[in-house]
Amino acid sequence: MLKKKIRVTVWNEFRHEKSDAAVKKIYPDGIHAVIAAHLNKQEGIIAGTAVLDQPEHGLTRETLTGTDVLTWWGHIAHSEVSDEIVNRVQERVLEGMGLIILHSGHHSKIFKRLMGTTCNLRWREANEKERLWNVEPGHPVTDGLGDYFELPHEEMYGERFDIPNPDKLVFISWFEGGEVFRSGCCYERGHGRIFYFQPGHETYPIYYDTNVMQVITNAVRWAAPRIIKKIETPNSPPIENLPSPA
Amino acid sequence: MLKKKIRVTVWNEFRHEKSDAAVKKIYPDGIHAVIAAHLNKQEGIIAGTAVLDQPEHGLTRETLTGTDVLTWWGHIAHSEVSDEIVNRVQERVLEGMGLIILHSGHHSKIFKRLMGTTCNLRWREANEKERLWNVEPGHPVTDGLGDYFELPHEEMYGERFDIPNPDKLVFISWFEGGEVFRSGCCYERGHGRIFYFQPGHETYPIYYDTNVMQVITNAVRWAAPRIIKKIETPNSPPIENLPSPA
Amino acid sequence: MLKKKIRVTVWNEFRHEKSDAAVKKIYPDGIHAVIAAHLNKQEGIIAGTAVLDQPEHGLTRETLTGTDVLTWWGHIAHSEVSDEIVNRVQERVLEGMGLIILHSGHHSKIFKRLMGTTCNLRWREANEKERLWNVEPGHPVTDGLGDYFELPHEEMYGERFDIPNPDKLVFISWFEGGEVFRSGCCYERGHGRIFYFQPGHETYPIYYDTNVMQVITNAVRWAAPRIIKKIETPNSPPIENLPSPA
Amino acid sequence: MLKKKIRVTVWNEFRHEKSDAAVKKIYPDGIHAVIAAHLNKQEGIIAGTAVLDQPEHGLTRETLTGTDVLTWWGHIAHSEVSDEIVNRVQERVLEGMGLIILHSGHHSKIFKRLMGTTCNLRWREANEKERLWNVEPGHPVTDGLGDYFELPHEEMYGERFDIPNPDKLVFISWFEGGEVFRSGCCYERGHGRIFYFQPGHETYPIYYDTNVMQVITNAVRWAAPRIIKKIETPNSPPIENLPSPA
Repeated sequence: MLKKKIRVTVWNEFRHEKSDAAVKKIYPDGIHAVIAAHLNKQEGIIAGTAVLDQPEHGLTRETLTGTDVLTWWGHIAHSEVSDEIVNRVQERVLEGMGLIILHSGHHSKIFKRLMGTTCNLRWREANEKERLWNVEPGHPVTDGLGDYFELPHEEMYGERFDIPNPDKLVFISWFEGGEVFRSGCCYERGHGRIFYFQPGHETYPIYYDTNVMQVITNAVRWAAPRIIKKIETPNSPPIENLPSPA
Repeated sequence: MLKKKIRVTVWNEFRHEKSDAAVKKIYPDGIHAVIAAHLNKQEGIIAGTAVLDQPEHGLTRETLTGTDVLTWWGHIAHSEVSDEIVNRVQERVLEGMGLIILHSGHHSKIFKRLMGTTCNLRWREANEKERLWNVEPGHPVTDGLGDYFELPHEEMYGERFDIPNPDKLVFISWFEGGEVFRSGCCYERGHGRIFYFQPGHETYPIYYDTNVMQVITNAVRWAAPRIIKKIETPNSPPIENLPSPA
Repeated sequence: MLKKKIRVTVWNEFRHEKSDAAVKKIYPDGIHAVIAAHLNKQEGIIAGTAVLDQPEHGLTRETLTGTDVLTWWGHIAHSEVSDEIVNRVQERVLEGMGLIILHSGHHSKIFKRLMGTTCNLRWREANEKERLWNVEPGHPVTDGLGDYFELPHEEMYGERFDIPNPDKLVFISWFEGGEVFRSGCCYERGHGRIFYFQPGHETYPIYYDTNVMQVITNAVRWAAPRIIKKIETPNSPPIENLPSPA
Repeated sequence: MLKKKIRVTVWNEFRHEKSDAAVKKIYPDGIHAVIAAHLNKQEGIIAGTAVLDQPEHGLTRETLTGTDVLTWWGHIAHSEVSDEIVNRVQERVLEGMGLIILHSGHHSKIFKRLMGTTCNLRWREANEKERLWNVEPGHPVTDGLGDYFELPHEEMYGERFDIPNPDKLVFISWFEGGEVFRSGCCYERGHGRIFYFQPGHETYPIYYDTNVMQVITNAVRWAAPRIIKKIETPNSPPIENLPSPA
């Protein structure tokens, strides 16, 4: 039995990498290039990329129709993403496409749209250590991970994170400076699956980390759709045996 | 100890009651007038009203600041509600205000905004019987209700209802024609509580029903805020003992 | 890449089929034989059986170690299942084995043990029609199912069903006589997945129904473990840099 | 309108306080005495106590009938609690009584019974600092608390905590040594509400802490029952208009 590959589109704002030398050094071709290259080495996954400054932000109807799972990294230019494209992505997620929101994507229009909340959080840039605890070792997203893994330097994201109660919370992070964070959150909306994953500040080589990339790969597999289907408002057929109005 | 009254604003589109003689007969002063009159008879509750055609839809900043719980009925004019007012109501809910969405309000901008989904459903107008089963007899919203209650004639709303998994599902409805519906759904978003309650088609005297009004009264008490607080994005203070970057 | 088959053990009380001629006519070799035969025709699944009157109820340590997913049908002899075997099954589920509870298994010791509640419900035997609504069309358990499917005659199981809030509710049933029921409920406990599925009264040929068997097959695939791992109480290593007691 | 007081029974194993001089110094009359004294100073609450070595562990049918909320502290003698009393408490919780499980009560028979899981966790005694983050500032259990509060010395309890997904997670703890913990967890089972709260190692004066006692007081109010009702298995009345069997 041939199984179809999961088609991923890796979306990136792609601005820091052009304007900030330190970021450019880590990600010379952009964060998206590193993530897509990694995914393309995984069995059963094929990944392309799209960036903010392309026409339609690279997310044409054709591209989305050919996408099973979309990953999203944005930070300084959330407001430049057009509402039309946000509508289009939301519609596609509700029809079944998977969506993986990375790091500062918590404040993207599309994540706030799907969550219905501010998605605000506490933060600090202090090169501190993060330890991500795996609270669901039996979940597909944590496949192959141990009890926890560490990132030697990350931006701190802390509670309270203003999100709906996750359908499944899979990682809780500990930060050296005294904060905690729900850093891996699974949601189901419409027919689609959404995963928020906190690591990925642009000034650290987070997307070269083996554990981080294992989680993203797992999340792609978990979020791949079983159906893609419009969500309608059917008027049920009349029924013959109902009483007349009083 | 004097306890402050819960301040309710009963919002109504108030269009059917003007244009449709059958509806006008049931609700000569509008659905809002009937709901508010009922609530004003309850201990510890004080209710006012607001309608679509007032300036700012009757939902000025002053009104919302003075509102603990907002109830919402709309149907044919969802698109006339301005996005600015929707933003304002959403912000207030996330800060802690309670929100009770009635019947066809499932397609209101504010409910779709807070849920992040289409909120689509199946429907039929056939004067059929609805039976609402109480699946959470210990929950504040079902206080005083029995195992189930019936409405002799209602519009059918059926599954699949495209909503996020409710934080608590309190009613499931049976319809004579063969459908079921999650007709009482509790959510928590930001610091606010939201209750969706299905009964209330404008051509039936639903808001004169004792059980329906008991549920709405209970929901008002359940959704009344414990805190009202802006949701911010604090930059945590720097910490002295963290390592230098590598 | 060769993928291992999912090893299923189909457990049955196997009493009605011996003592009741009508049941024997439908299931001459027992309910378990019909379910296992169906599963053995599915790609990637291999199924064996076990019954109450075998030594250790057919659930030896060896059998459980070789079982990825256990399905359970019981009714009149729940009390004859030994507590020792219930402990053993519970331990294995928490370590990661999938468990599918069928119909009257809602009152089995193992289901009540894992839920922590009475699992009581409303019931009636009246040959009535059941319609199962698919409320999660994107979920693996409903793969290939339509908006709903029907069983022409089933025992009515109705709300309130005394269970914890399901982690995911996938089916809600409508019964001709006026009741509703949460008839497909997903849970995660320890590292294991549990699915409760209501159809299966012994006097109707429910386990020959195409849709019912599709759901059970889907549930087997969904509940198959990703890890099997003891759940321990580790004493974390001492840390050097902590303060002395005050 | 006179509102009835919430009747609390504070249960304690009461063994450490007799055998361990350091614990006796902190709690000369037992942990239960300190908790009950605090609750008795709160408006609308009246608290009594019960301990393991009383007949029926102090939890006679009369006592439980007169109890709205039971708090539970145990550690070294969980196995001495009789199964009969555990059954009785479980039955009462499912009928509506509130239950607050403190600290090492995570391994009590009653908590494991109601959760269905091992309730295992990671631990370390190292006098380390704990910081409890309030992730639900709008929830009744966190009423009056700030963004977080600290305990200068506590036993570390860490993830993975083997519990069902909480119905509402209200506190997440940070520990100095590098662990995190879901330290405030709300559940609803049957008609009853259950709150697990992690602080309370016997060698520290935790139950004299203002914030800890505020949380316990809030939890008592949140868990107080709205109804107390047996959970039955009703055979629904026959219905006349159903078809004959095929």
